Amino acid sequence: MKCGPKLKLFTLNSHYSLAKEISDILNVPLGASSVKRFSDGEIQINIEESVRGCEVYLIQSTSEPANEHLMELLIMIDAMKRASAETINVIMPYYGYARQDRKARAREPITAKLVADLIERAGATRLITLDLHARQIQGFFDIPVDQLMGVPVLAEYFKKKLPTEEIVVVAPDNGGVGRARKMATILDTPIALIDKRRPEPNVAQVMNIIGDVSGKKVIIIDDLIDTAGTLTSAAEALIDRGAEEIYACCTHPVLSGKAIERIESSVIKELVITNSIYLPEEKKINKITSLTIAPLLADTVLRVHNNASVSVLFD
Amino acid sequence: MKCGPKLKLFTLNSHYSLAKEISDILNVPLGASSVKRFSDGEIQINIEESVRGCEVYLIQSTSEPANEHLMELLIMIDAMKRASAETINVIMPYYGYARQDRKARAREPITAKLVADLIERAGATRLITLDLHARQIQGFFDIPVDQLMGVPVLAEYFKKKLPTEEIVVVAPDNGGVGRARKMATILDTPIALIDKRRPEPNVAQVMNIIGDVSGKKVIIIDDLIDTAGTLTSAAEALIDRGAEEIYACCTHPVLSGKAIERIESSVIKELVITNSIYLPEEKKINKITSLTIAPLLADTVLRVHNNASVSVLFD
Amino acid sequence: MKCGPKLKLFTLNSHYSLAKEISDILNVPLGASSVKRFSDGEIQINIEESVRGCEVYLIQSTSEPANEHLMELLIMIDAMKRASAETINVIMPYYGYARQDRKARAREPITAKLVADLIERAGATRLITLDLHARQIQGFFDIPVDQLMGVPVLAEYFKKKLPTEEIVVVAPDNGGVGRARKMATILDTPIALIDKRRPEPNVAQVMNIIGDVSGKKVIIIDDLIDTAGTLTSAAEALIDRGAEEIYACCTHPVLSGKAIERIESSVIKELVITNSIYLPEEKKINKITSLTIAPLLADTVLRVHNNASVSVLFD
Amino acid sequence: MKCGPKLKLFTLNSHYSLAKEISDILNVPLGASSVKRFSDGEIQINIEESVRGCEVYLIQSTSEPANEHLMELLIMIDAMKRASAETINVIMPYYGYARQDRKARAREPITAKLVADLIERAGATRLITLDLHARQIQGFFDIPVDQLMGVPVLAEYFKKKLPTEEIVVVAPDNGGVGRARKMATILDTPIALIDKRRPEPNVAQVMNIIGDVSGKKVIIIDDLIDTAGTLTSAAEALIDRGAEEIYACCTHPVLSGKAIERIESSVIKELVITNSIYLPEEKKINKITSLTIAPLLADTVLRVHNNASVSVLFD
Amino acid sequence: MKCGPKLKLFTLNSHYSLAKEISDILNVPLGASSVKRFSDGEIQINIEESVRGCEVYLIQSTSEPANEHLMELLIMIDAMKRASAETINVIMPYYGYARQDRKARAREPITAKLVADLIERAGATRLITLDLHARQIQGFFDIPVDQLMGVPVLAEYFKKKLPTEEIVVVAPDNGGVGRARKMATILDTPIALIDKRRPEPNVAQVMNIIGDVSGKKVIIIDDLIDTAGTLTSAAEALIDRGAEEIYACCTHPVLSGKAIERIESSVIKELVITNSIYLPEEKKINKITSLTIAPLLADTVLRVHNNASVSVLFD
Amino acid sequence: MKCGPKLKLFTLNSHYSLAKEISDILNVPLGASSVKRFSDGEIQINIEESVRGCEVYLIQSTSEPANEHLMELLIMIDAMKRASAETINVIMPYYGYARQDRKARAREPITAKLVADLIERAGATRLITLDLHARQIQGFFDIPVDQLMGVPVLAEYFKKKLPTEEIVVVAPDNGGVGRARKMATILDTPIALIDKRRPEPNVAQVMNIIGDVSGKKVIIIDDLIDTAGTLTSAAEALIDRGAEEIYACCTHPVLSGKAIERIESSVIKELVITNSIYLPEEKKINKITSLTIAPLLADTVLRVHNNASVSVLFD
Repeated sequence: MKCGPKLKLFTLNSHYSLAKEISDILNVPLGASSVKRFSDGEIQINIEESVRGCEVYLIQSTSEPANEHLMELLIMIDAMKRASAETINVIMPYYGYARQDRKARAREPITAKLVADLIERAGATRLITLDLHARQIQGFFDIPVDQLMGVPVLAEYFKKKLPTEEIVVVAPDNGGVGRARKMATILDTPIALIDKRRPEPNVAQVMNIIGDVSGKKVIIIDDLIDTAGTLTSAAEALIDRGAEEIYACCTHPVLSGKAIERIESSVIKELVITNSIYLPEEKKINKITSLTIAPLLADTVLRVHNNASVSVLFD
Repeated sequence: MKCGPKLKLFTLNSHYSLAKEISDILNVPLGASSVKRFSDGEIQINIEESVRGCEVYLIQSTSEPANEHLMELLIMIDAMKRASAETINVIMPYYGYARQDRKARAREPITAKLVADLIERAGATRLITLDLHARQIQGFFDIPVDQLMGVPVLAEYFKKKLPTEEIVVVAPDNGGVGRARKMATILDTPIALIDKRRPEPNVAQVMNIIGDVSGKKVIIIDDLIDTAGTLTSAAEALIDRGAEEIYACCTHPVLSGKAIERIESSVIKELVITNSIYLPEEKKINKITSLTIAPLLADTVLRVHNNASVSVLFD
Repeated sequence: MKCGPKLKLFTLNSHYSLAKEISDILNVPLGASSVKRFSDGEIQINIEESVRGCEVYLIQSTSEPANEHLMELLIMIDAMKRASAETINVIMPYYGYARQDRKARAREPITAKLVADLIERAGATRLITLDLHARQIQGFFDIPVDQLMGVPVLAEYFKKKLPTEEIVVVAPDNGGVGRARKMATILDTPIALIDKRRPEPNVAQVMNIIGDVSGKKVIIIDDLIDTAGTLTSAAEALIDRGAEEIYACCTHPVLSGKAIERIESSVIKELVITNSIYLPEEKKINKITSLTIAPLLADTVLRVHNNASVSVLFD
Repeated sequence: MKCGPKLKLFTLNSHYSLAKEISDILNVPLGASSVKRFSDGEIQINIEESVRGCEVYLIQSTSEPANEHLMELLIMIDAMKRASAETINVIMPYYGYARQDRKARAREPITAKLVADLIERAGATRLITLDLHARQIQGFFDIPVDQLMGVPVLAEYFKKKLPTEEIVVVAPDNGGVGRARKMATILDTPIALIDKRRPEPNVAQVMNIIGDVSGKKVIIIDDLIDTAGTLTSAAEALIDRGAEEIYACCTHPVLSGKAIERIESSVIKELVITNSIYLPEEKKINKITSLTIAPLLADTVLRVHNNASVSVLFD
Repeated sequence: MKCGPKLKLFTLNSHYSLAKEISDILNVPLGASSVKRFSDGEIQINIEESVRGCEVYLIQSTSEPANEHLMELLIMIDAMKRASAETINVIMPYYGYARQDRKARAREPITAKLVADLIERAGATRLITLDLHARQIQGFFDIPVDQLMGVPVLAEYFKKKLPTEEIVVVAPDNGGVGRARKMATILDTPIALIDKRRPEPNVAQVMNIIGDVSGKKVIIIDDLIDTAGTLTSAAEALIDRGAEEIYACCTHPVLSGKAIERIESSVIKELVITNSIYLPEEKKINKITSLTIAPLLADTVLRVHNNASVSVLFD
Repeated sequence: MKCGPKLKLFTLNSHYSLAKEISDILNVPLGASSVKRFSDGEIQINIEESVRGCEVYLIQSTSEPANEHLMELLIMIDAMKRASAETINVIMPYYGYARQDRKARAREPITAKLVADLIERAGATRLITLDLHARQIQGFFDIPVDQLMGVPVLAEYFKKKLPTEEIVVVAPDNGGVGRARKMATILDTPIALIDKRRPEPNVAQVMNIIGDVSGKKVIIIDDLIDTAGTLTSAAEALIDRGAEEIYACCTHPVLSGKAIERIESSVIKELVITNSIYLPEEKKINKITSLTIAPLLADTVLRVHNNASVSVLFD
């Protein structure tokens, strides 16, 4: 008679410090493995301990460089499958390509679905992730997906920091109103919305603020902040409409291109993020506050491993 | 040497009149077939002409009763596959279960994905559909999906009817702001949004209007209207906030339960719908204007059959 | 190290009393869940307890309304899969659409195979069922199928009731001779057969009795009785040929249309059925005797759960 | 712009003469290929002409030696798939392992389903076959199956030979009554049935004749005759019950073991078969009459290739 | 709560004595089963004990007759799957058809891949094998493959037998140089190579020895020896080039056709093989020394069952 | 009635000049599309012309950066599939990750198989490639693979340049002897082999030349040259053993790391390559001669499109 599978935790290259933090909380060492490059850039994986019959958890955010990080993950899954791992649980705090989740124009790929297909084809048996750009991405998978929420973590921070009666939560675009409402409900505040519109033909697009922000402390919330162009313009528009202070927050700090520069020089007072994506030293500016999701992920791993309900994490 | 496949058009039971309209436009007769019930309610399908090597188009909205209509479709696809149809193109103007497109709470099914899986498993080779509740549902499929748009049809109607400078387009909830913006862009108008919020703990939820509607002709837009409860409350709230006239529109007139009754007795002046779902006589009240999508679907069939671009239909 | 999976028992809507009976025998409570309808008839499933890592048994006969019951089952399987159930064992005492198990005419579907495909695609990992219309349906599945037998239960009843030397077991049509032989072997009796034939062209079809029934107590056996039209005509033909008493039995009491009325007014003395399908109060007439299969199903669940042989149940 | 695919006909080793006959009727030469054995018995396939983009028909009965013939077929399908054939249509007049179509006892394989799985996995796109042991085997496939009928061919022969008013068609066992009824309907005759039964415990099994055969010309019909043990015993029992002359017929002349010897020395006057299986010279005894199914198969190939209805072949 | 699966060991017909040896080492009895033939040669499998929930190991070399042995294996896997085995681990010491692992010429099958596909499709969950003709065959599988090595076993034998400083290891053809190098590294010796070349057009092919063998004890190594034609010619060429003594070895003694005769009459002094393939009595000539791999396979089964690392077996 | 599909040619980013050359030869313009990067490095694909019903050929070598180029390809395939391309034919002159084609050590991935799985999963219907590192990689695919040969192109060059009687073709390692033999056969020359061996324990590995090279013009052949470390050492060893002149050639000029530097300063007189991989200006040194494979690929596209045999290209 055989015993049930043993839990093993492995990290790839995208975010060692998060993996280490989870490992420390769980008191489960990171598995011995390395992900290197051959001279021509091809990925070379070495797994230096047996995973036969184990319940393996692989930690990898498919953040920039997304293609490299995704391929690392896929190759590691293949190696784990062929090495007879019992289950292969992918912990992907940030799901790269999540924004390409539908055909917005003719002949576009649905890369977020392709990524799901590739992960399943390689042999993953579960996905644990955080704040998908669209929740429908869960349905791109046949394997179970445990989607965790970053909004409560962010909301908790602001609850302690600001008087909630002075807050308005603002969605920076049409698609984000649901997310803004979710945070606003936790904080018990109203919401507003940025609507981009061209007032007359051949005239530049303007940012309309729909809803009342005058004299308020505004929190702009998004699932991710990429180049921060829209965000910083929105912040300015909000100030123009009488907002008192501008805060911003997001789960996934993509922060590519001129993002840091823009935020630094913007009217935004503070940007609150989580560590779903590794933030290199040069991006750690004073305005940015980073909250850790390692306890949330560690708790999830434990619950999955022990077949305990994960849903309680959402309450 | 063989010729290319012949186009054949078949309808199932959900919407004969739409199928007939498409057939008339295309000048392609509806294929000889029947979908009946055995004494115990099991579905009995007869296809009375050969479909061997043909390019078959099956027309079926999975509207109420959704389960019956879906099973009719799946069984017909199975029969077509076994009868050696070359391609099986499903035209599903209304995609039932589209609202169950993500796990909103623990242990929920993602029925919209299940439906996609069942349709593919049965053997369909293409889906043609209209205004999916979430565009991400396209990604639930591996087969090509051609998603058509009802919003331009609806917008065109209002453009002719109302002075656009007096219009505000209103989204009835958080998730619909994108759709409202799309219509507003065609009409070149501003948007507003209904935000449901509980002002204080233990106090009834109220509908906040975010954005300015006073003195305006309001068009509430949604992808579908089901029981019309939220819609009619929203209409009242808009009147309370000074809106002059309330119009409503949607692509899919689900209109279940007390919907007709509520609309009849509401402040809504006119509800504009498409015929993506069959509207029985008893629901055809004066307030409802139905626009036909048959020309759009017929044009799509022709373009798909002739390998012409479908994307031009979106411009 | 993890423990093995826990057994959980859930019922859907087709047959609560059978599920309850199994639950009582096993002393395993029915899992907390509900299967309701939205206003437009779409199915709404709530699973109110964790099933993560559990061995789940779902009880559902896809009896009338077959399409509704099948969709309930498929959606529940999807929900269980996404909720991380370890195994999903479907207990389907009655397999709806089993009669559509081959192409009898051109362009017919093989709906019994489609149903198998849908159940597997949704994510079931085992099927437990009873007296399939054709045993070949087992081969429609890739997952293990445990097919139980109702004939011994029925035979046991008659063994106690009638002197076996006076019995003839009669198959009501060509396809059922094997089943009649199986019961006859348990009872150690001869068999006979109803053969429908048109004696001359343009003359009405008559029922020939092949085999000797004169002065005998006849038991007509079938896997299911649907409208009871053939059955009651056969009973009369048997009386005409000198049969003394007519009994009928079947595993699956479909009993649709005028079945009850016909049986009530027929020469059949008693109809013995099992409770594989829920029999509503209005169908519980005096002539009908219902035998329970709950102990057989409960025993099977236990054996499957404990990896004990199920085959002993057939001896 | 490309043309449609060209028809190519290939044979494997089980039945060259049938393939040649089909080729002659169609006036399509047999494709240049060979199926040989390496020194250790492994199969070596050479396809000596291009099949790129062609509609390929492969002729192979999986008759004795079934495993060799099946593997030849699977390897040929693999080669055709990799050689870019457009479609791979398997013509399998005799489907070996068809009798293992269900689990009759615990832990039995369903080899007929396995064979279907292997053929599909290798890459076949269609199956054309004849008189499957159970029609449900069609449902073992996802690809289209065209099942042809040998019974009309056999019936036609007897119609010309014998006065139909003197005929009784007899099923040699429980499972074959449907087939007997089908032939009896064409000939407009009654049927009878052989029922094997043990009259008292510990007494040898006897063959009961159910139905009247006295003074009649009996035709025993089966889908296949294997060792002919049951058949020849049945013939004797029928003579004992007063039958005047015994004829036998089947679609598939498996005729293994002592079959020929038994038939030769039996009371059977004539055995009528089709050439679905190659009959070696030593089995061609005077009592056996072989009817060709080549015209039926050739017609089917032509209809499939031209997308004409195959169902008319059944009328 | 359930226990983990029990280990059960089954053999098919290709190599009973090896299976028995493994069974004895493991002290696990061979499961009660039989693999027989019906009269027409179809395979009949009986599994006479429950395997429900068990971890099953099936031992079968697909040696001559390869097609029969492969079909036995596939049918057994199907039976095990339908009998609810938890895992089905195929131990295939010799992988038949491994030489057909690529398209060497146009329109060739890749039968080694087909075999992999069939094994997976039937339901195997793991393959344990030995010295694949090409290691890339591991990649033909999605399921885990544990490939063991016979070269160390063979090398160990020669290390004890011959003074290593007098040895040259020779590859009999281009493709085998890697294998020769592997053995040479264990023995710490040089290698040489047989290169077949036509010195001038229209002149017979000659065997060139590349590398120095003069005065040496030569060990020719191959993964398998089939007809031994090339081997015995090579041996002669080596003697002609001054080799002192010729030894040969291989993992898989296919030894078909005239192999035994050729080896007997050749200059080869000793042929060392393993028992990966059953060697019938008539092939057991004095020149042949057979080494057993049963301990290696038994150890592997134990490690797989206990989730211990198998890689240590390679050191 | 529909026409057959139209040929369309698209390139991705790895090798525009090769694609252009093929396009020019075929006189088929490159399809309008672009493959760009979003600010965070995610791939953005635009296909600017309809591909509905077309036979699409995508040209992409998965050369350095392999992960970027592979992801570009996968996303493009996804887009083409969803845009209703009839067939998606991938032309991959260089197959990245081909060297990871087997588990050489425990727990290694088989990345070459993973790549095959990903390409098929994304939706490709054919692969056209050149000189796979191992020919078995063809068997990693279920879709047809047309593998072209670079060796004849390289051999032809040397035939014209050097007197063949003075040539020896040398394989740089154990695995490449077959390739060396192939070229040697075209040139009608002998071969030799580099064997790396440690002469005594704890002594540095030396390169043995097996075979005679003294006074010869040596051509070292490999499928690819990566860092050129082994190659340049081998060249020196060959000079040491008396070789007169050293030439090198390969199909795939990976040339990463210090490759160019090493070749420049080596004893190699000339390195002949093909343009299967894009060679940037800084790598175009005088010693390197590049031969184009565009005519071979263009011819293949034409033959595939016209269903003409591709095998003639190998003669």
